[in-house]
Amino acid sequence: MNNFKNDYSVGAHPNILNKLIETNLVPQLGYGEDEYSAQAKDLLKQKINNFDATIYFVSGGTQTNLLVISTLLQVHEAVISAKTGHIFAHETGAIEATGHRVITVDSHDGKLKPSDIEKVLQAYSLRPHVVKPKMIYVSNSTEIGTIYNKEELEQLSEFCKTQSLLLFLDGARLGHALTAENNDLTLKDIAKLTDIFYIGGTKNGALLGEAIVFNKPHLAPEFDYALKQKGALLAKGRLLGIQFLELFKDDLYFDLAKHANKMAMKISAAVEEKGYSFLTQSTTNQIFPILPKTLISKLNEKYLFYEWAAIDETKSAIRLITSWATDETKVDEFINDLNELE
Amino acid sequence: MNNFKNDYSVGAHPNILNKLIETNLVPQLGYGEDEYSAQAKDLLKQKINNFDATIYFVSGGTQTNLLVISTLLQVHEAVISAKTGHIFAHETGAIEATGHRVITVDSHDGKLKPSDIEKVLQAYSLRPHVVKPKMIYVSNSTEIGTIYNKEELEQLSEFCKTQSLLLFLDGARLGHALTAENNDLTLKDIAKLTDIFYIGGTKNGALLGEAIVFNKPHLAPEFDYALKQKGALLAKGRLLGIQFLELFKDDLYFDLAKHANKMAMKISAAVEEKGYSFLTQSTTNQIFPILPKTLISKLNEKYLFYEWAAIDETKSAIRLITSWATDETKVDEFINDLNELE
Amino acid sequence: MNNFKNDYSVGAHPNILNKLIETNLVPQLGYGEDEYSAQAKDLLKQKINNFDATIYFVSGGTQTNLLVISTLLQVHEAVISAKTGHIFAHETGAIEATGHRVITVDSHDGKLKPSDIEKVLQAYSLRPHVVKPKMIYVSNSTEIGTIYNKEELEQLSEFCKTQSLLLFLDGARLGHALTAENNDLTLKDIAKLTDIFYIGGTKNGALLGEAIVFNKPHLAPEFDYALKQKGALLAKGRLLGIQFLELFKDDLYFDLAKHANKMAMKISAAVEEKGYSFLTQSTTNQIFPILPKTLISKLNEKYLFYEWAAIDETKSAIRLITSWATDETKVDEFINDLNELE
Amino acid sequence: MNNFKNDYSVGAHPNILNKLIETNLVPQLGYGEDEYSAQAKDLLKQKINNFDATIYFVSGGTQTNLLVISTLLQVHEAVISAKTGHIFAHETGAIEATGHRVITVDSHDGKLKPSDIEKVLQAYSLRPHVVKPKMIYVSNSTEIGTIYNKEELEQLSEFCKTQSLLLFLDGARLGHALTAENNDLTLKDIAKLTDIFYIGGTKNGALLGEAIVFNKPHLAPEFDYALKQKGALLAKGRLLGIQFLELFKDDLYFDLAKHANKMAMKISAAVEEKGYSFLTQSTTNQIFPILPKTLISKLNEKYLFYEWAAIDETKSAIRLITSWATDETKVDEFINDLNELE
Repeated sequence: MNNFKNDYSVGAHPNILNKLIETNLVPQLGYGEDEYSAQAKDLLKQKINNFDATIYFVSGGTQTNLLVISTLLQVHEAVISAKTGHIFAHETGAIEATGHRVITVDSHDGKLKPSDIEKVLQAYSLRPHVVKPKMIYVSNSTEIGTIYNKEELEQLSEFCKTQSLLLFLDGARLGHALTAENNDLTLKDIAKLTDIFYIGGTKNGALLGEAIVFNKPHLAPEFDYALKQKGALLAKGRLLGIQFLELFKDDLYFDLAKHANKMAMKISAAVEEKGYSFLTQSTTNQIFPILPKTLISKLNEKYLFYEWAAIDETKSAIRLITSWATDETKVDEFINDLNELE
Repeated sequence: MNNFKNDYSVGAHPNILNKLIETNLVPQLGYGEDEYSAQAKDLLKQKINNFDATIYFVSGGTQTNLLVISTLLQVHEAVISAKTGHIFAHETGAIEATGHRVITVDSHDGKLKPSDIEKVLQAYSLRPHVVKPKMIYVSNSTEIGTIYNKEELEQLSEFCKTQSLLLFLDGARLGHALTAENNDLTLKDIAKLTDIFYIGGTKNGALLGEAIVFNKPHLAPEFDYALKQKGALLAKGRLLGIQFLELFKDDLYFDLAKHANKMAMKISAAVEEKGYSFLTQSTTNQIFPILPKTLISKLNEKYLFYEWAAIDETKSAIRLITSWATDETKVDEFINDLNELE
Repeated sequence: MNNFKNDYSVGAHPNILNKLIETNLVPQLGYGEDEYSAQAKDLLKQKINNFDATIYFVSGGTQTNLLVISTLLQVHEAVISAKTGHIFAHETGAIEATGHRVITVDSHDGKLKPSDIEKVLQAYSLRPHVVKPKMIYVSNSTEIGTIYNKEELEQLSEFCKTQSLLLFLDGARLGHALTAENNDLTLKDIAKLTDIFYIGGTKNGALLGEAIVFNKPHLAPEFDYALKQKGALLAKGRLLGIQFLELFKDDLYFDLAKHANKMAMKISAAVEEKGYSFLTQSTTNQIFPILPKTLISKLNEKYLFYEWAAIDETKSAIRLITSWATDETKVDEFINDLNELE
Repeated sequence: MNNFKNDYSVGAHPNILNKLIETNLVPQLGYGEDEYSAQAKDLLKQKINNFDATIYFVSGGTQTNLLVISTLLQVHEAVISAKTGHIFAHETGAIEATGHRVITVDSHDGKLKPSDIEKVLQAYSLRPHVVKPKMIYVSNSTEIGTIYNKEELEQLSEFCKTQSLLLFLDGARLGHALTAENNDLTLKDIAKLTDIFYIGGTKNGALLGEAIVFNKPHLAPEFDYALKQKGALLAKGRLLGIQFLELFKDDLYFDLAKHANKMAMKISAAVEEKGYSFLTQSTTNQIFPILPKTLISKLNEKYLFYEWAAIDETKSAIRLITSWATDETKVDEFINDLNELE
């Protein structure tokens, strides 16, 4: 079956596998003290233009989110997220399991605005009978494919500063956001405008791995303890370091994301041309076309994808995801079927 | 520097890397639903001769321990461990961080006996002012290189049954235990005598990965939720499945451990011959010779290892670890230096 | 200032204080093992007609809720509540602090219906990426003054059974619910239809104290450990036992609640007669009249109460609470002012 | 049966009950905002001579300990306690349940010395594989009846400052410590030498209640949230305020403790005169005489007390506790029996 179900269905970019083989028998210190991790951190600091940043590599996004949030919040503090935010929607209560409420905001585009947060702050004002909102969690690209533009992120950043709120950006698909056609943000901007963010490897060419960036090192001076305590410190940290080293050599990371986006946008254009609409205005590698149920049934016989939401009696929205490894001939085949099948 | 500091200083056994390359672009379902993981689980069930077992793959030992213990214990229940146990000594309070006390027992050989546990049960009897001991945590091989023999494990298993205690065996170095010269246990015995155990990959040829085995599937029917919640469910679960598939093909896993043990025992024999003694009676890949401090200083210039414990004014115990990748010529070199240097 | 702000502004019913004095120097065992607690539990078992029930006394409602919920849920399980539910709205994230999500349902009347829960079960079906809903939390009377009738609670109870959900009823104001004019439930019904519930003392005549009833004793056979662990086990448990003994002697508890309701309904009738409407259809001791802001300002000079919610430019809803100790002359004075002031 | 089993077997000092009756119908704000609590806090600040202190009242000792410790420690930090410390010995893992390890020190006199702590700091130095010791927990009087003298507490305080450790003193029986014959500390000293301490009411005349004192208010600026979240904030906070107001009026608190100590010392002298020895060198209201088992059996028929520890074939240590309410005629009767029975 041709896969449009997720962006983690195959292994890693060949450069990574080659580097793993090349370095395989070079002895290294364990637990992230290896030289590849050190080099990868240096490289990332250059890319974000912040040599004071503190960087850690971990295995996955849920792990990142629970580590960052539980380390930075006091027991009575909470994090605010869009209702579509991954920490609320698809992490099995990982944040609550560390003791903190996720306060949700309904958001049609998966993004948060200062006015959304202002309402939460008002609703959570009856101290001490309510939790204290302390952190803002945003995703870029969002879980529904949209992206923040520079003005939006600047406004959010400014608002958080005035309200003493921490701004944490989930970059599980940060590459896809920063290479979208309508993007005007850079990695350096992200580092400047957020307090903490992470760069997702798993969904963009790595076997596994996310790079957590504390833009202000005083935020978590003892984060290494938390990494170990929560089972996130790999004995062979080299595995993570090597991957980020390869991904950010010659900006491979962005090339991979660009390809994923291009594949999605090609399908998107075909969907639009055919007269179908979309559930969300995505410009990245996740798109949500609204199609006739009969057509969905037929596509389902050849392609793997999620049926996302029922729209009415005859139509549903589906989710199609492309990745760095998506074969353009499969995309063309899908477009052809979209046009031919009814 | 020649490394006797740990057994995770290099990458993976070449078979694993080759298989990763071979399967790299075969699309698979995510989150452990891939066919390699399914095959690896089937293979392990054959090896342990328990087709009812439920098996999960995760990244590392601390993650395994905290997942198993926090899932199986009620809020007021505690786990009993030797003071040298990894969960007490080297996991940054991972178990307490999930809400449970680790009750420790002083043990000269790193192992637990029914009589040790009986004393704990008596000390923790003033209900409800004390926690309730509910699980026994043992490691095989232990953190100081010793192993359980069959009779010892049978007695422990029997005692746990009569006391309604769960028996959990940490097998981070299970391969080394089961291939030690004085071992009389099999993988099948382990599965029969414990309630839960795990088979460590990280320290015996894998890039990362431990296989958690619930010998009685009713013990944690919804463990998958916990895996996801604690950030332990890899999107590309194939990475873990493929490694265990390779490790247990043709019993590679045991061959690798045998080599590590053989290297350690070669050094051990030289130490003994030279008239030095040991801190612990290890028969596996971790040994703890007691050497003159002057000799330790000189060895330190060429070899990486831990100084484990001061013994007296002139002597200390060091820890030497070998692995599947230890080069015998380096071992011989070390033995030579041990004999030559003073 | 005359108080309509809460139902815990004065001390205890005199019978309770007298009994405290009478028994003051009779030595008793500590930690709830005293004879008064034993007698009070026996009395309550008679009242609920369930001699198998297990009963515990604790200090307050938040403590009760967090104890019951954290003891009964597994790490990956969640509780469903109306958005107005006390556990979500006014307990500072107490439930999340024990590791569990509170899944909320928008409810205009503060109550939950099977259809609400069905929608949650559907939304939380993507195992293992979401928490597992396992418990239903309802309040009677609700936080907005409404009550469940027998048919509603029966339907909920039946639905929970078919879905293997636990039904937990917060009875912080259970007395007020069961003595409301439109009530058709009894204490015995509550015990039969729920899995766990509690009888609130603090808001109906006690200095402090809630009685937690496990209708099915197998639900939490070791709850006493949790009580101690969470700091809820009073050394002088007699203080709680004595109070419940007095409150349920000659049904004082219900007489007190009846008085509170009567006072609220008297104001309610006056509000209605004057042509004002209500935010909620309360029949208990909390009412939410919608009044002109100018009138609210004037009332505020003489009476303590919460401004609950802005309705429009000129009107707001306020919350008035009466209690067992509310003086009818103050109620009449308030009604008079309501009619006289503009 | 005559009670020497604990110091919480009867109700409250009559002054407290009288004040409860006198103030019963005076309306007050809830949740600790009442005027009695405010007055009691002012009075305590005078007594400790620290008008910057922040004070909170809660129900009991376990609640206090878990609140203070979980609020002040980061996720990876731990508290050091004597093995006899209440948080380790008799609180059902309350501290671990909040996620933190209690690191224990063997101590023959129930007290901690700088040298004990230094050893722990050395043992817990392998960052990040071990928790970080951050707080020292001491009890005065200790759980075995001994007390700290001024020099000891000064040394401990100084050591904690140099090591950036927080010093937390459990004063469940602080009155008994400060009125012991060999005491040279004052309440003002305690406030000066510790970071946080609490004054126990439950075991010295109150129905329930402990006063938590943050000597440095910056330590927990948002502790009120934690109080509410953990279920420790009583709706009728007046109950706690009134009690401390009465206990510290005319130093009743110390008079009550003095009586308890005097009763214990009277028995102690008789035990000594009779030639028996003690398990611990107590000068407060808990004593641990070592008596022949045959004598213990006979005393057991008339008196309630704990058999604390078996000493040898023929002797055991028992624990006798006296309180503010202990009747001297019962003490004399006990002494008489001690002398008469064999």
